[in-house]
Amino acid sequence: MLRIGMLTSGGDCQALNAAMRGVVKGICSKRDDVEIYGFKDGYKGLIYADFSMLTSKDFSGILTRGGTILGTSRQPFKLMRVPDKDGLDKVEAMKHTYHKLNLNCLVILGGNGTHKTANMLREEGLNVITLPKTIDNDLWGTEMTFGFQSAVDIATDTIDRIHTTATSHSRVFIIEVMGHKVGHVTLHAGIAGGADIILIPEIPYDIKSIAKVIEGRSKAGKPFTILAVAEGAISKEDAKLKKKEYKEKLEKRKYPSIAYELAEQIEKETDKEVRITVPGHTQRGGSPCAYDRVFATRVGAKAAELILKEQYGYMVAMKNGETTKVPLADVAGKLKTVDPKCSIIKEARMIGISFGDE
Amino acid sequence: MLRIGMLTSGGDCQALNAAMRGVVKGICSKRDDVEIYGFKDGYKGLIYADFSMLTSKDFSGILTRGGTILGTSRQPFKLMRVPDKDGLDKVEAMKHTYHKLNLNCLVILGGNGTHKTANMLREEGLNVITLPKTIDNDLWGTEMTFGFQSAVDIATDTIDRIHTTATSHSRVFIIEVMGHKVGHVTLHAGIAGGADIILIPEIPYDIKSIAKVIEGRSKAGKPFTILAVAEGAISKEDAKLKKKEYKEKLEKRKYPSIAYELAEQIEKETDKEVRITVPGHTQRGGSPCAYDRVFATRVGAKAAELILKEQYGYMVAMKNGETTKVPLADVAGKLKTVDPKCSIIKEARMIGISFGDE
Amino acid sequence: MLRIGMLTSGGDCQALNAAMRGVVKGICSKRDDVEIYGFKDGYKGLIYADFSMLTSKDFSGILTRGGTILGTSRQPFKLMRVPDKDGLDKVEAMKHTYHKLNLNCLVILGGNGTHKTANMLREEGLNVITLPKTIDNDLWGTEMTFGFQSAVDIATDTIDRIHTTATSHSRVFIIEVMGHKVGHVTLHAGIAGGADIILIPEIPYDIKSIAKVIEGRSKAGKPFTILAVAEGAISKEDAKLKKKEYKEKLEKRKYPSIAYELAEQIEKETDKEVRITVPGHTQRGGSPCAYDRVFATRVGAKAAELILKEQYGYMVAMKNGETTKVPLADVAGKLKTVDPKCSIIKEARMIGISFGDE
Amino acid sequence: MLRIGMLTSGGDCQALNAAMRGVVKGICSKRDDVEIYGFKDGYKGLIYADFSMLTSKDFSGILTRGGTILGTSRQPFKLMRVPDKDGLDKVEAMKHTYHKLNLNCLVILGGNGTHKTANMLREEGLNVITLPKTIDNDLWGTEMTFGFQSAVDIATDTIDRIHTTATSHSRVFIIEVMGHKVGHVTLHAGIAGGADIILIPEIPYDIKSIAKVIEGRSKAGKPFTILAVAEGAISKEDAKLKKKEYKEKLEKRKYPSIAYELAEQIEKETDKEVRITVPGHTQRGGSPCAYDRVFATRVGAKAAELILKEQYGYMVAMKNGETTKVPLADVAGKLKTVDPKCSIIKEARMIGISFGDE
Repeated sequence: MLRIGMLTSGGDCQALNAAMRGVVKGICSKRDDVEIYGFKDGYKGLIYADFSMLTSKDFSGILTRGGTILGTSRQPFKLMRVPDKDGLDKVEAMKHTYHKLNLNCLVILGGNGTHKTANMLREEGLNVITLPKTIDNDLWGTEMTFGFQSAVDIATDTIDRIHTTATSHSRVFIIEVMGHKVGHVTLHAGIAGGADIILIPEIPYDIKSIAKVIEGRSKAGKPFTILAVAEGAISKEDAKLKKKEYKEKLEKRKYPSIAYELAEQIEKETDKEVRITVPGHTQRGGSPCAYDRVFATRVGAKAAELILKEQYGYMVAMKNGETTKVPLADVAGKLKTVDPKCSIIKEARMIGISFGDE
Repeated sequence: MLRIGMLTSGGDCQALNAAMRGVVKGICSKRDDVEIYGFKDGYKGLIYADFSMLTSKDFSGILTRGGTILGTSRQPFKLMRVPDKDGLDKVEAMKHTYHKLNLNCLVILGGNGTHKTANMLREEGLNVITLPKTIDNDLWGTEMTFGFQSAVDIATDTIDRIHTTATSHSRVFIIEVMGHKVGHVTLHAGIAGGADIILIPEIPYDIKSIAKVIEGRSKAGKPFTILAVAEGAISKEDAKLKKKEYKEKLEKRKYPSIAYELAEQIEKETDKEVRITVPGHTQRGGSPCAYDRVFATRVGAKAAELILKEQYGYMVAMKNGETTKVPLADVAGKLKTVDPKCSIIKEARMIGISFGDE
Repeated sequence: MLRIGMLTSGGDCQALNAAMRGVVKGICSKRDDVEIYGFKDGYKGLIYADFSMLTSKDFSGILTRGGTILGTSRQPFKLMRVPDKDGLDKVEAMKHTYHKLNLNCLVILGGNGTHKTANMLREEGLNVITLPKTIDNDLWGTEMTFGFQSAVDIATDTIDRIHTTATSHSRVFIIEVMGHKVGHVTLHAGIAGGADIILIPEIPYDIKSIAKVIEGRSKAGKPFTILAVAEGAISKEDAKLKKKEYKEKLEKRKYPSIAYELAEQIEKETDKEVRITVPGHTQRGGSPCAYDRVFATRVGAKAAELILKEQYGYMVAMKNGETTKVPLADVAGKLKTVDPKCSIIKEARMIGISFGDE
Repeated sequence: MLRIGMLTSGGDCQALNAAMRGVVKGICSKRDDVEIYGFKDGYKGLIYADFSMLTSKDFSGILTRGGTILGTSRQPFKLMRVPDKDGLDKVEAMKHTYHKLNLNCLVILGGNGTHKTANMLREEGLNVITLPKTIDNDLWGTEMTFGFQSAVDIATDTIDRIHTTATSHSRVFIIEVMGHKVGHVTLHAGIAGGADIILIPEIPYDIKSIAKVIEGRSKAGKPFTILAVAEGAISKEDAKLKKKEYKEKLEKRKYPSIAYELAEQIEKETDKEVRITVPGHTQRGGSPCAYDRVFATRVGAKAAELILKEQYGYMVAMKNGETTKVPLADVAGKLKTVDPKCSIIKEARMIGISFGDE
């Protein structure tokens, strides 16, 4: 008997279901003696032994469905060793569930935080296979994650819609795209949507530089400007602050997010009206795009292969278009940010996109 | 020679170009001796004689394009008789442009404010035909306006995407839909998107009632709630205030909009996390939906017919699926709100949708 | 106890699930003592007592899902009294199932053929409520049917995509739209997609007239032509044939459908290359558009109201934007075709669309 | 002065305009003294010196527009040295145009056939830079081409829509996807759409094997089957024929395409009804997806960089996510087919997809 535990953790995104379908179809095509334990709401389900017994039928017909049939929650890595209100050590509780159910392995789908915990479980002796899930595409060791292209599609669609209204009204439009620490989604959606200015955490901006671009466009007969900004974009000044100082500054910020702050500054520096659009959680929602479905299916099938071969302790990754495995120990805790000198940034600058830093 | 002035005024929306194409194609299919004066950025172009000479070619290929090729701006009716900074009376200026160019008529596309000014121009002796443009569908005298169905489609798509993420996370999700004074878009998108609670200006809400619905759902095993709220939704308490008092209260509101206020209240009244999505100007942007293209083309062609017959002073309207004309005098200044007792509200309540007023 | 049988019959379309959800949510919001019998694959399930017991939960979360959770099949009205291979009289079998299960009523969702059988069941003494389902919008007694607007959206999207490729290549493109007997979908999608020529069954065409339009466009510097044709479009010559003669001619036709025949004729009459696109069953598939979801929910809720009031023998209809009921006897067997003199045809001609009949 | 000729050749696809915009924006951001000669309808424009002088403005706002603003046509490589009806040698004519206009280089966007001619022009001494345009993704030397992902998206959307109607009706549905010689689009769309059987030219099929899969599904309680087939899929028997024999057989085929032939065979081998959908040219049409826009913009900008550095004779390619250049001589005439043993095929088989060859 092969006993597999499965959970999805962290912010949800598209193609989680597609990936799980890939794993289960892959395993069940080879073996009949399989038990699947679906843990509810991420690590929480593993901690409190909250699970359902699932069959391959439960994973049929979910390829196109957004969200996750298992539910998810954020369980910060930092708090994993902090006892809960009943004094329970969460890590020990997870190990206990795992051993009590006599599991052969855990399949864990998640992003950066999730991988840190997954690696800890591996260090504690559990058999773990992970799948690279995040709209941010910021996981080390893989050139792509599922969720990313779907999020780019939605953010691009938002910019497209704003484009028509922007040209009708001669305004500056700010679209705030998801991404607290990395700018991959903003960068791709910004290029795809024809943004004039793109601000990402990896390239601190200068508000004067932004104002100059806007005014330059006005002078050139282009009365509107489209600015795509990542949630975590940062000014050159703030980038000089210590991490703690900046965090305190953020907490005191009177605006809900960066877009509102930028809007005020731009209205001060230029004579333009500014409008804000925040697509927010829609970027995580809905049916995955074709690209993500193929990607998630492939890494899911690859995970099945590893499980059937009893090769544990890996994240399934994509490299040069081929699925592969990467040791969890090499991945956990590392962030893949946008390299300000990479070719896509260079190409974006070449066609006249400003990163607010000139 | 037939000399037609054309302008689009107020907030932009989908199918403005489709409607103008309908007018121009309709006229040019019958007459060769036509001059079209496209005024730039709404009434502003008429006031300051800022226009381009256009030909039927300029209106070819724009059926599917969002925005307006003429540009638009908001020119509040209240300020029309208030001299500008150079002391110019705007109404006299518009009349002057009209007569100087020897126009046969003006084709004006716009919503409520636009129609008040259009009617004033009619009273001043100008030949005017208007087309019912607004995402709000709040124009009196027509069962539909173009822009409405496209906005509903986009708001519905937003709710759809949020649905998958909501079910994954057990949260309350608030989607703020456009509509300061009327709730048509929110009502339709809310029903189409499967919202559990719909709040519109026409039906004041009670926060306790909302909390009860959310908790009732939790008890029934539905841990998430989707709430669609119109920008102009109002609580029962606030609905008792005098207009001026409420306006002052709004100005002091610490939040950018109603959704943020509701979120705070719901988090206070229940134990749920709340997330907010504001699709904002995307609701006005992008290619018009098929419904709006047909609608806009039809009213455009009807306007052409009226112009060819020299029948002026009308808004083109849709009644029982047929295009018709309505005297501008009967339309200007009237708002078509959602009747709280209409059949669609009754049907929505019947399938269990709450309007926060029970 | 309220015992409701439900079935979906004929070609599937969008919003069948949304409509059934409306019925069930509407009834279950008022009564607890409800049993729902879901008959499988249309009348077949009623004939052979093939059904599942469903609860309100089965109808939750299906608002946006295409297809029908009950399955459907075509059971021609003509054959209803013809015994099956086991000698079973189908009508008597349906009555038997109804009475044996002690049903209070049947809710039947379908188009024209379905309504004939539903009316027969009513005449046989069964309590029947029907809902107007068809992409064709050809049901008498209602201004709209669900499925129609979704089909128009998809056909329009097809024309939109073809438009870009047509302009790049200077070709004639034929898009064959669903509609064997009526042209509503083709007419609306044709206008929405900016088709130059629209051919529908209600307005017989002349191939010479079509060729003239194509060549006229070429001379005017528009080297491509978009032609939207309904499956059942007919030439002026063929329209003169007796029904039986025409049927025989169709059977001998060497082409899979009208589009291929037209293509050959156009290539003969002009010097243009022709390309064909047949979106086919995609026009029935996928998630319903917002318009159809609202429409289906409303008529579903109205059906619930009628059932709770024990008012049977009606089709739920939409008139002037309000739900209403129409006696089944007035509806069954009547076809709502496109009136060649209606205002939308007039408006389409006005903007230069050809119906191939000039 | 920098004089650049530009042309798009072969079947049109998405993102041609986006790519040209990238080239022109990239060059014009560095140099002011640029003349752009846009040749009309592919090589034809170069042969007959049919061109327009374009400015950077002509390439503004076309990022999202489908088709090509230059027009395109197919000019088979085989006929390039065959004199036209006026006795003109086409290659000499192209050289003549190039030299007469004193061009510095030609930017050529196209697929396989286009590249053969481009390489010949290079061999004749012209400065040539090419961009990899094709929905087929079959160009040697690059891991991706623009147009591919957009085509996959559309084909996937078609399969999605068919899925709902298939489940409602218990039928076999065949979706014929573009791809005469290679199966990349079919493979990706088939996986993304959840097809049960995928047939591509690279893996010859056996109709008995297909029938077995369909019947196996029936027995397992899955009454419908989705089959995605590439235009150029071939049976095991036919794959044994000599190329010429097979071509003759194809010409005698009574059906418009493979899907119709398969349908007949499946209806013979099983008891299932079969329905066919052929999305056809829609797969080339409409606005490019976000992925293609980013890709096309990047390779366009890279082409600009090469031109500014006067590095000619290359196709711009993508390798491991980075833009690069590949000698035209290495690319021309080579086809990148699907390797039947590649990991994506393996993964597809693993989750139970049949390629009709078992």
